[in-house]
Amino acid sequence: MPVYAAPVKDLQFVLHNLLEVSQSEVPGYHELDAGFTGAVFEEAGKVATDLLTPLNAVGDHEGCVLENGVVRTPTGFKAAFKAMQEGGWTSLDCDPDYGGQGLPYLMGAAVSEIFSSANMAFNMYQGLTHGAYSAIHAHGTEAQKATYLPKMVSCDWTGTMNLTEPQCGTDLGLMRTKAEPQADGSYAITGTKIFISAGEHDLAENIIHLVLARAPGGAPGIRGVSLFIVPKFLVNPDGSLGARNKVTAGKVEHKMGIHGSATCVMNYDGATGFLLGDLHKGMRAMFTMMNEARLGVGLQGYAVAEAAFQNAVAYARERLQGRAVTGDANPAGPADPLIVHPDIRRSLMDQKSFVEGARAFTLWGAHLIDRSRRQGDAAAEAMISLLTPVIKGFQTDKGFEMAVAAQQVWGGHGYIEANGMSQFVRDARIAMIYEGANGVQALDLVGRKLALDGGKPVMAFFAMMKAFIKDNDGDPRLKADFLLPLKKASKDVQAAAMHFLGTAAKDPNAALSGSTDFLHMMGHACLGLMWARMAKAAYAALDAGGDTAFLEAKIATGRYYMSRHLPATALHLARIETGAAAVMALPAAAF
Amino acid sequence: MPVYAAPVKDLQFVLHNLLEVSQSEVPGYHELDAGFTGAVFEEAGKVATDLLTPLNAVGDHEGCVLENGVVRTPTGFKAAFKAMQEGGWTSLDCDPDYGGQGLPYLMGAAVSEIFSSANMAFNMYQGLTHGAYSAIHAHGTEAQKATYLPKMVSCDWTGTMNLTEPQCGTDLGLMRTKAEPQADGSYAITGTKIFISAGEHDLAENIIHLVLARAPGGAPGIRGVSLFIVPKFLVNPDGSLGARNKVTAGKVEHKMGIHGSATCVMNYDGATGFLLGDLHKGMRAMFTMMNEARLGVGLQGYAVAEAAFQNAVAYARERLQGRAVTGDANPAGPADPLIVHPDIRRSLMDQKSFVEGARAFTLWGAHLIDRSRRQGDAAAEAMISLLTPVIKGFQTDKGFEMAVAAQQVWGGHGYIEANGMSQFVRDARIAMIYEGANGVQALDLVGRKLALDGGKPVMAFFAMMKAFIKDNDGDPRLKADFLLPLKKASKDVQAAAMHFLGTAAKDPNAALSGSTDFLHMMGHACLGLMWARMAKAAYAALDAGGDTAFLEAKIATGRYYMSRHLPATALHLARIETGAAAVMALPAAAF
Repeated sequence: MPVYAAPVKDLQFVLHNLLEVSQSEVPGYHELDAGFTGAVFEEAGKVATDLLTPLNAVGDHEGCVLENGVVRTPTGFKAAFKAMQEGGWTSLDCDPDYGGQGLPYLMGAAVSEIFSSANMAFNMYQGLTHGAYSAIHAHGTEAQKATYLPKMVSCDWTGTMNLTEPQCGTDLGLMRTKAEPQADGSYAITGTKIFISAGEHDLAENIIHLVLARAPGGAPGIRGVSLFIVPKFLVNPDGSLGARNKVTAGKVEHKMGIHGSATCVMNYDGATGFLLGDLHKGMRAMFTMMNEARLGVGLQGYAVAEAAFQNAVAYARERLQGRAVTGDANPAGPADPLIVHPDIRRSLMDQKSFVEGARAFTLWGAHLIDRSRRQGDAAAEAMISLLTPVIKGFQTDKGFEMAVAAQQVWGGHGYIEANGMSQFVRDARIAMIYEGANGVQALDLVGRKLALDGGKPVMAFFAMMKAFIKDNDGDPRLKADFLLPLKKASKDVQAAAMHFLGTAAKDPNAALSGSTDFLHMMGHACLGLMWARMAKAAYAALDAGGDTAFLEAKIATGRYYMSRHLPATALHLARIETGAAAVMALPAAAF
Repeated sequence: MPVYAAPVKDLQFVLHNLLEVSQSEVPGYHELDAGFTGAVFEEAGKVATDLLTPLNAVGDHEGCVLENGVVRTPTGFKAAFKAMQEGGWTSLDCDPDYGGQGLPYLMGAAVSEIFSSANMAFNMYQGLTHGAYSAIHAHGTEAQKATYLPKMVSCDWTGTMNLTEPQCGTDLGLMRTKAEPQADGSYAITGTKIFISAGEHDLAENIIHLVLARAPGGAPGIRGVSLFIVPKFLVNPDGSLGARNKVTAGKVEHKMGIHGSATCVMNYDGATGFLLGDLHKGMRAMFTMMNEARLGVGLQGYAVAEAAFQNAVAYARERLQGRAVTGDANPAGPADPLIVHPDIRRSLMDQKSFVEGARAFTLWGAHLIDRSRRQGDAAAEAMISLLTPVIKGFQTDKGFEMAVAAQQVWGGHGYIEANGMSQFVRDARIAMIYEGANGVQALDLVGRKLALDGGKPVMAFFAMMKAFIKDNDGDPRLKADFLLPLKKASKDVQAAAMHFLGTAAKDPNAALSGSTDFLHMMGHACLGLMWARMAKAAYAALDAGGDTAFLEAKIATGRYYMSRHLPATALHLARIETGAAAVMALPAAAF
């Protein structure tokens, strides 16, 4: 049975040494002193270890079952969900006007890492609700907000997002679900939506579906769709639950992983819906939540890798097999623990250096969202828009790869379902697919975000890298190990961007042929930047008499990433520079 | 439901254009004209498509069930196994003295690719039997061979290999299973073996277990173990089945994949065993089969990737989503097929160029085994010994990665179990683990094979690369696209080998810290060499008026590999050159 303990020290390091949150001018950040955030993380960690971790295997094993239109979640989910509500864990960063605790988004994200590590599938019920909450909060009328938000903040009611249909996934322009205006101002929604997480379940009194559909008069394609609120139970004027709406779950999917999360086919059969936001502007409403939702998936990528890593370390310490090449490390035992072997150590360092770098990157991203929302900082908004596909795409690709690496440490025992390592791999796999498959993230990055605002955000990113390198040029502790590799990586990324600019006009396929490589080189550059910054922060903390073992390990882990992973930018650049010719050489029939 | 069609053209290209088998002086190869091999592949392809492919999902879904000591294989497996026996598919490359057809091992391997693609789990019953057949054939007495081999060639009896125990996986020196000599010359075997593929099932009349155990008087550790034949049913002098032996399946494991393959815990409780080969020389007997068994697993790596790739292509052609950036490709339809998109194309080219390169590498490896066995060619034996960990480790790592890539093409639909893409990923995963986890392959390569015979095999490998490059230097069609990249990769691999030599004495951890990187750079170099040779062969065939579309696609696919994948050797070299410092920096407690 897998173990999990919240990495409180590492979270604290990111918040207080790297981001220095309590010294930040962002409104609400002054509350975030180390004592407070540490207490929140410790408490969340207890819930994660004691309540959610044991349910992870249960959820995987039992899955969700649809019977007579009702979806039964796995044993224990209901009680745990209740406990999460009562503990206030559903409302951390929600608006106090609707019963939330008003903490920065950063805190919501950090706690979400803990819960996602412990039980990714379980945490999705609350995560989806938060997404729907944000959409209604941003685009709802006052009446809509008053009706839905308090119950969604408490998770008495949960939420869903309904985009995909059988014939349309990435290409939402192919959408067919219809919204017919009714005399009372509502709409009758008819159509089939698929892959709807938490579409139907037994954890909440009501489910508030947000549904994209076509109302009459909209343009064809993606520009003509509108967003609707479709509650499972209609809500009476006094807030009590009214009639059952005409929306039902037709099926619960049998998936590779996240079995505890009910992925439903939802049938809308003239269901009553209420327009959310402007008519025919449904995609705009969706896009405002996109950064947050995609950051949340990028977070899942490293959160599951963290849990898998912890179990790989535990096994590597405990399992005795072979002898260290440098001499017996455990002479009294029949063999040495796996952790003495360099190739096992390499794998653990791969995992550790990725997870810690990704944590810093993600929480920095959450901090940018706070700066955008709480300060109206347009530069922060532009930066997080640029980096969102990188957080989502790179971190879920690598998070999966690292979960596979953690499973590999267990050898044959990792392939046996009862040991739980397989579940990490199977669960992590979905994060590469949903909320925009990673190829779509790469397309968004190269096809849209690079050119955003005349390229200003990406120029700002390069300038930030350059400034950091220049500002710290005099620090011999950083120079060779951190600044020079970062400079090299930064040059590679810039060369790739220039290559795209140079070829884009001549061959539209060229940039897109290199899009996934560019996403990955950006990811490495961002983690490289994070590690350089963390090394600087760690040296500063060491100078101030901080925890030597922890801080030196942090620096050594960063050195590992800079020397063994960051150089991947050169390979990605080499691939990108081959252009589209080799990629597009074959006629489709030749495959 | 996934589809599969045997890649007969590609197999024929490897045999006849690349390896030119019918012109080879290897005994038995003269039979292998294109008409004959093509007919075998076509026939195997029919069996694979019609019989084995439909059973793949059944096996995954039902798994194997242990009830009252009997293991029930999935519905249809029994009839299919019977059909395979009757079709002569179990005996292709077995010794005619025992009822085999006497074909070269190369043919057995090529056909095994087809069956592994169609149904990896099912094909393991025959595959394991072949391994046990080979061990008895190489080390058995005449009486043992006469008793067991004819029934194993026909697969009336199947075979197993029993190495692993709960406390010992890679480190077989920790083995506890005991063999006590009996008055009649047999041994009483007692102990528990785990992860025994095909340990118990209902496909055959008898199961011949080969079991490693400790007999009295053996040295401690790995050097003191012996190998025993332990039949499920003892065999009477007249060949009929006698008493049930004291060996039982205690459990069938619930695994991530290959559910159709019964992975058993086997309990030996004073079971009657017969020494196979010399006392205390059990490992030597095992090692003689190792190259073949590991090549077989490396073959599974690309075979499953091939099946996944075929289904990714089918989906990419059929699924309409988005529009080509260069203008509508399917103006009459609501959208263009996925295959127009450069990032989808990149993924398909990744898959195609890996699978075709790996096929060539593996079948060349099988050819080396034939040269060793049938001609006593010591240089071929040394070369395949060097390359075996590369075939196993590199190809199963990449094969898994490519199965994941194929699944990704399917988007959300790839995550739904009923579509079958998940099964390819889950099945492919085991190949990275069993028959020596890939970290152990890397250790074998760097710690043992590089130094073999004073480094002669690796020097021969480098010389072969050099000779090919030099011999073809005058061919402008090969030079820039194939020879120069190959030269660069070859230099990188040599630099890494030199680095190991330089640091090995000073720091034993250094080479091992780079072992997985070295395994991968060797893999790329080998596939690069294969692609360069295939390009040469394809140009020659084009000049001779061969199938233009097929041959040009072959060359274009090779160009893709050379330009986009081979350059990975530089990254691996950069990592290797960082040595052990970063890898081993942390004390074990700091993880």
